[in-house]
Amino acid sequence: MTGQMQRIALASRPVGDPKPENFSLETGPIPTPGAGEILVEVLWLSLDPYMRGRMDDAKSYAASVGIGDTMEAGCVARVLESNFDGLAPGDIVEHRFGWCSHAVAPGKDVRKVDPTVAPISTAVGVLGMPGLTAWHGFNKIGQPKAGETLVVGAATGAVGSLVGQLAKAAGLRAVGVAGGAEKCAFAVEELGFDACIDHRSGDAKAIREQLAAACPNGIDIYFENVGGKTMEAVLPLMNVWGRIPICGMISYYSGAEPGALDVPRLWRSLLVNRLHAQGFIIFDHWDEFPEFVSEVAPMIADGRIKYRESIAEGLENAPDAFMKMLKGGNFGKQLVRVKPETA
Amino acid sequence: MTGQMQRIALASRPVGDPKPENFSLETGPIPTPGAGEILVEVLWLSLDPYMRGRMDDAKSYAASVGIGDTMEAGCVARVLESNFDGLAPGDIVEHRFGWCSHAVAPGKDVRKVDPTVAPISTAVGVLGMPGLTAWHGFNKIGQPKAGETLVVGAATGAVGSLVGQLAKAAGLRAVGVAGGAEKCAFAVEELGFDACIDHRSGDAKAIREQLAAACPNGIDIYFENVGGKTMEAVLPLMNVWGRIPICGMISYYSGAEPGALDVPRLWRSLLVNRLHAQGFIIFDHWDEFPEFVSEVAPMIADGRIKYRESIAEGLENAPDAFMKMLKGGNFGKQLVRVKPETA
Repeated sequence: MTGQMQRIALASRPVGDPKPENFSLETGPIPTPGAGEILVEVLWLSLDPYMRGRMDDAKSYAASVGIGDTMEAGCVARVLESNFDGLAPGDIVEHRFGWCSHAVAPGKDVRKVDPTVAPISTAVGVLGMPGLTAWHGFNKIGQPKAGETLVVGAATGAVGSLVGQLAKAAGLRAVGVAGGAEKCAFAVEELGFDACIDHRSGDAKAIREQLAAACPNGIDIYFENVGGKTMEAVLPLMNVWGRIPICGMISYYSGAEPGALDVPRLWRSLLVNRLHAQGFIIFDHWDEFPEFVSEVAPMIADGRIKYRESIAEGLENAPDAFMKMLKGGNFGKQLVRVKPETA
Repeated sequence: MTGQMQRIALASRPVGDPKPENFSLETGPIPTPGAGEILVEVLWLSLDPYMRGRMDDAKSYAASVGIGDTMEAGCVARVLESNFDGLAPGDIVEHRFGWCSHAVAPGKDVRKVDPTVAPISTAVGVLGMPGLTAWHGFNKIGQPKAGETLVVGAATGAVGSLVGQLAKAAGLRAVGVAGGAEKCAFAVEELGFDACIDHRSGDAKAIREQLAAACPNGIDIYFENVGGKTMEAVLPLMNVWGRIPICGMISYYSGAEPGALDVPRLWRSLLVNRLHAQGFIIFDHWDEFPEFVSEVAPMIADGRIKYRESIAEGLENAPDAFMKMLKGGNFGKQLVRVKPETA
């Protein structure tokens, strides 16, 4: 295929918060698919907090993005050309194509998306990586029992919103923490959380007091998305035998201060309350994807699970949307509409 | 029984390191056992790091010792009088009688010790609470697999020495951290550790370099006894999927500084390497005692498991021995000989 494609590359490594100059919009020829490969046009691009870590050069669970390389992302895309038997032009696929308008990839590596199950954007949201993240952490590490209490931060985000709704469906009390009155109201009124605390309403102590009131039986599961003062507020309220699936810690990604909690206090909390803290990376657990989809897709279809999307228009606006998301500026799953589905 | 008994009470709560004035030696009449109770004379008193926590007024996993109350401890004692059917004068029992020369307790609450299995002092050591602690944390949380590498601090102490020897017996590489060349030599030459690093030899970075050399395949299990710079040295060396049974953190008990590690870094380590950190308190796991003894007692009898005791003479010297132990002044399981067995 002739024509030009666009991609967003990592121009330089951020120190603290990413800035516009850390990204560059590059233009080049649309690539040609080789044997077994497909060419796609990207429709939806997913922005997720973990991408901040890929911009650093530090040891992490995946390789850093190199300077000049395309930023990583999960995408929903339409097949334009196919040299792979199982896929044809027009098919919708999900794959980590990156921040770009077009891409080629081995056909065997991508996941075909059924557009009749749910809107295709959910393939990078509630029915994709963030959804599996919520489902795995909640069920496999959280080990929930009906009647227990769960707290989750970033409660209206892609992961947190599903964690809370899964908790409610499993008979737990679900309490969220989110930034701002509007998000908190949404968590309670639309998502069905029992309560949601606005973390902008005060310091760790003030948040703890509100959490204590919202969790009269203490906290059994703290699904960790955020770290920082939310974590500091939660820890002293954890019940003996509590579980902490550690999924992320967005407040620390750009160098936020650790606050009043120090390492001895944190470590002592784990000991004294016999807590089980376990980090997990969803890329280790793709084998659970069929089980996850078979459980959650029907709950979306019948309205038991709701989701909300925050959409930026156009690939060129991805950096700005990403930087805002790291500050909590999104409201629901953050997507970039690279190309309208119907265009 | 007429006569006087002695006990050591908590005189005041320490700030930081305990001092002699935090303890008081009290004398009073020997108590009389009621219905179902026994009167004992204490032979061996166990000193353990957890007792430092009981001196504070903070929330912990057990109630604080009250001001004026007898300090808590596990003891090996001889029955002097019995109003309980299953015990007779002369029997040896183990129970949490406390820092005292004589005590009464319900006969049903104490554990009868068979003096033919091993020296009776082991009932508060390698075949008692510290032994079960090592065995539970290593096996149930550590989930060891032959060929893996384990690191344990306080490697010649009551818990650490058994952890390392159990690891060797299970086919793991066992690396200790201990204070001073003499303890390190003992860990390797007598206990069979593959290596032992002297934590007095440098800062966390220097210890990390020595540990990295001693653990060429990384660290799969870190049995946490000490916290502080040993923990800081270990964390970056943990392998993906590593396990951290959190048993204690003696370096923090009297307010040691957290060092260079901050909460975000610690939390991030757990996430990035998918670590499983779990606090445990052995008092939750007494039901495993028979399984533990059936496995470990024969290993002591045939010399596969060795143990070393550090003995203070006389109840009045318990506070001094305890204060020294918190600084690493003991070498092996710290005991107080309250009364010679043969007297």
